Amino acid sequence: MERVGMDGVPWTGVPWTLGELARRIGATLRGDPHLVVARVASVARAGAGDLAYLADAGDLDRLRYTRATAVLLGDKEAARCQEAACCPVAALVATDPYLAFAKAAALLQPSPPPPPGRAPTAVVHPSAELHPSVSLGPGAVVESGARIGAAVVVGPGTVVGAGVVVGDYTTLAARIVLLPGTRIGRRCLLHPGVVVGADGFGFAREMGRWVKVPHLGGVEIGDDVEIGANSTIDRGTLEDTVIGPGVKIDNLVQIGHNCRVGRDSAIAGCAGLAGGSRVGERCVVGGGSCISGDVVLGNDVVVLGMTAITKSIPDPGYYSSVFGAMPATEWRRRVARFRRLTRPGGGAEGEGE
Amino acid sequence: MERVGMDGVPWTGVPWTLGELARRIGATLRGDPHLVVARVASVARAGAGDLAYLADAGDLDRLRYTRATAVLLGDKEAARCQEAACCPVAALVATDPYLAFAKAAALLQPSPPPPPGRAPTAVVHPSAELHPSVSLGPGAVVESGARIGAAVVVGPGTVVGAGVVVGDYTTLAARIVLLPGTRIGRRCLLHPGVVVGADGFGFAREMGRWVKVPHLGGVEIGDDVEIGANSTIDRGTLEDTVIGPGVKIDNLVQIGHNCRVGRDSAIAGCAGLAGGSRVGERCVVGGGSCISGDVVLGNDVVVLGMTAITKSIPDPGYYSSVFGAMPATEWRRRVARFRRLTRPGGGAEGEGE
Amino acid sequence: MERVGMDGVPWTGVPWTLGELARRIGATLRGDPHLVVARVASVARAGAGDLAYLADAGDLDRLRYTRATAVLLGDKEAARCQEAACCPVAALVATDPYLAFAKAAALLQPSPPPPPGRAPTAVVHPSAELHPSVSLGPGAVVESGARIGAAVVVGPGTVVGAGVVVGDYTTLAARIVLLPGTRIGRRCLLHPGVVVGADGFGFAREMGRWVKVPHLGGVEIGDDVEIGANSTIDRGTLEDTVIGPGVKIDNLVQIGHNCRVGRDSAIAGCAGLAGGSRVGERCVVGGGSCISGDVVLGNDVVVLGMTAITKSIPDPGYYSSVFGAMPATEWRRRVARFRRLTRPGGGAEGEGE
Repeated sequence: MERVGMDGVPWTGVPWTLGELARRIGATLRGDPHLVVARVASVARAGAGDLAYLADAGDLDRLRYTRATAVLLGDKEAARCQEAACCPVAALVATDPYLAFAKAAALLQPSPPPPPGRAPTAVVHPSAELHPSVSLGPGAVVESGARIGAAVVVGPGTVVGAGVVVGDYTTLAARIVLLPGTRIGRRCLLHPGVVVGADGFGFAREMGRWVKVPHLGGVEIGDDVEIGANSTIDRGTLEDTVIGPGVKIDNLVQIGHNCRVGRDSAIAGCAGLAGGSRVGERCVVGGGSCISGDVVLGNDVVVLGMTAITKSIPDPGYYSSVFGAMPATEWRRRVARFRRLTRPGGGAEGEGE
Repeated sequence: MERVGMDGVPWTGVPWTLGELARRIGATLRGDPHLVVARVASVARAGAGDLAYLADAGDLDRLRYTRATAVLLGDKEAARCQEAACCPVAALVATDPYLAFAKAAALLQPSPPPPPGRAPTAVVHPSAELHPSVSLGPGAVVESGARIGAAVVVGPGTVVGAGVVVGDYTTLAARIVLLPGTRIGRRCLLHPGVVVGADGFGFAREMGRWVKVPHLGGVEIGDDVEIGANSTIDRGTLEDTVIGPGVKIDNLVQIGHNCRVGRDSAIAGCAGLAGGSRVGERCVVGGGSCISGDVVLGNDVVVLGMTAITKSIPDPGYYSSVFGAMPATEWRRRVARFRRLTRPGGGAEGEGE
Repeated sequence: MERVGMDGVPWTGVPWTLGELARRIGATLRGDPHLVVARVASVARAGAGDLAYLADAGDLDRLRYTRATAVLLGDKEAARCQEAACCPVAALVATDPYLAFAKAAALLQPSPPPPPGRAPTAVVHPSAELHPSVSLGPGAVVESGARIGAAVVVGPGTVVGAGVVVGDYTTLAARIVLLPGTRIGRRCLLHPGVVVGADGFGFAREMGRWVKVPHLGGVEIGDDVEIGANSTIDRGTLEDTVIGPGVKIDNLVQIGHNCRVGRDSAIAGCAGLAGGSRVGERCVVGGGSCISGDVVLGNDVVVLGMTAITKSIPDPGYYSSVFGAMPATEWRRRVARFRRLTRPGGGAEGEGE
């Protein structure tokens, strides 16, 4: 529940009056604007000085017992809960309460920035250029010619390869590897275990053997990109793999060589983009989905989870190929029937897909 | 085949008489109780002093040639193989031979514990509390305020974040990252590359851009949990992500923010649990399966491999949505037919799923 | 675009005459054999001294504007583009231009080998045997009894466990973990974050609890194997997990305990092989596909992407169980209809799958 500061001590956040907070996050205040909160918390656990966040409608019943100083509600919940018996505390009411919560939490409990400095076990090549405000954790490695901007955090065990460029205010959490040819923008956040710039999976076949196709391109990552733990982004063959600004990538995602992901798209966990596929702007790719090689998605395409994209999709909209689970015996019955699906009469049939 | 000790030397195990071993693992002995074994091995490779394990029925034909001192058999195999021509050596007969093998192997070849001590390149913050019996590998990092219990192994390159708590007898293999807010129980085993406590994948949308939702919860992992290589478990948004005691998680598994996995459940490789999903007790989630956000599984639910769980499942049982592969041309014919599946007459149709 | 050398300086490659290059890569030259190229590049970006590679037919229109010294084309493209207006520069024409490109790029821009030597923060156990030409990066760890061959690169943060054997000319990029019991052949390339030799996911059940099955086997990896970033290969239970020579494995792939992958097979990203499954020689497993435990694939089996292999496949050919995505509302209509798929009359039905 409590954010722990770099010193290991729980950390109580920045106090804001409800009036000022409402103004900043675009919410309407119901209650005393001079009350002060300094943390966010769930309805069940909030105490004095906390802004409770009503994460789902089921919390509404618990609200009457809250010990929070104030609560953050959506319009709909607020309308259903106008009396003190239902909501005994001050309320910030927002049209998009999740967005308002995101903003409130960032104001009340900003991430404690690590202090600049170099751990004694960090290794920096003399030709690398580091802004004096860079924080280098234990065992971090910065190779020759790398350029690292202001207030960048290079976490423990992170490897910044030769010639790599990292923009200002970017955080590279622990154990990340950025291989040569990688350029990362400003204000990015890479979680532990990310690997950027490994060779793409490209091989030509010669008499049954695989001949490696060298990968000479790089990876270009725009500003404000977030990449989840243990995700991988391969370098391009000749040109770069490109992740546009504002793109958000979850954990254990694979982005193949020469992929291009347009600005402000989001890719959920365990998804995979095969080499050369392209995702437009503001797309959402659901968890566990795969996109085949060289497939192109237009802008504003939403791919539901566990979906296979085998052909290009130019138009915005929602797309799916997921079957929800059934009890296994019933499922097998459907599958058996599916397997017998042929044209009545059993004649030859045009092939789809 | 041979377990290698920390000194790099193959290591022969602890000798047990067949009589005592039978008693300990709950098997019936057929043969001389004074014979001694000190290792487990496959039927094909076992030699003198070894207990051969009959991994599958196909091994039964090879048993007549075994050079093992004894063999471990299931009831059924033992019944089919009562004469010396079939089984020329002593036999331990068990109702669940896989379980008996697990117990025998643990007795005969226990993992050699690494010696306590700190590698010179390990980095420990002065405010961290480590039991004197902790083993710290090269390049391990323990940040401020962390508390590490008795006989814990912190492998090479592992990062234990600020304020993290690790219970007695837990092993953190190489290159693990435990971020602040993580609490791990006793006797856990985390394989290399695991990341616990990275931010969940939560973003609110504002005018086409993603606004990061801060993740202020932690991760609580119970006793006796095992987590496979390169798996990831995200921290909660406000409350904790919770992995119950006895849970077993395979490699490359993603557990999203605020998930709860009940005690003694198992999750196989490449599976993914989206944020807020809940798995009951004693569940089994097959490899490559995905569970959608906020979905709830009751106790004793078994999800077969490559299955999508898009809705909650309260009742125990087996569930599936997997199609087994067919030759591609036949498959495409079925898919084409599936795509034409509409109500006869082509009228509007209620939407399922 | 430019390969960066270990010194962080872009690096221009090895000059070859077109005549000699054509001979080496098995291409037909159209133009002056004395012209010299020293790099590969895309058609759009190539300049003087570059060999442009026509990656797809769409590039053909751009070819007339190229500033490259020469271009590498397939037979078909060359036939469509014989006049100077279409192809104003010398051309190397190949039957398999992707293969020819792979060979040309390897000749023109070979990977700069890192210099031998040991980083001061590398930790090597005195009993380990390292060839003098080994390159050990910062924070690399080599445990007792390990044996590392000629010209091996042990990248930053890589852990080579006790008794592990690594063959000549193998590259272990950054942050790899090889656990005891691993043996790797010659000329292999392991990308960052790979974990080899973690315990398989094997547990016996006893009264609702999981009992760990010890994993005492190792992992044997043949010559010329490539393994992608953050992929994992588990050790065997009693015998070894075996990856045959020439096998290519992409990123985020999971290979379970006791799997055997035959020579020259390729496994694309996010695929998973459950414990005990076997893949023949020259197979291709598509991205995101899963193979169930103990399933056996013969030689030359091609599994398309996102496919579930639940039964053994003895015969060569293409296999699939993938549904391509549709607009979600249309998809749901098909799924609803599928769910009603039962034998006309609703009687009992034989179970397939």
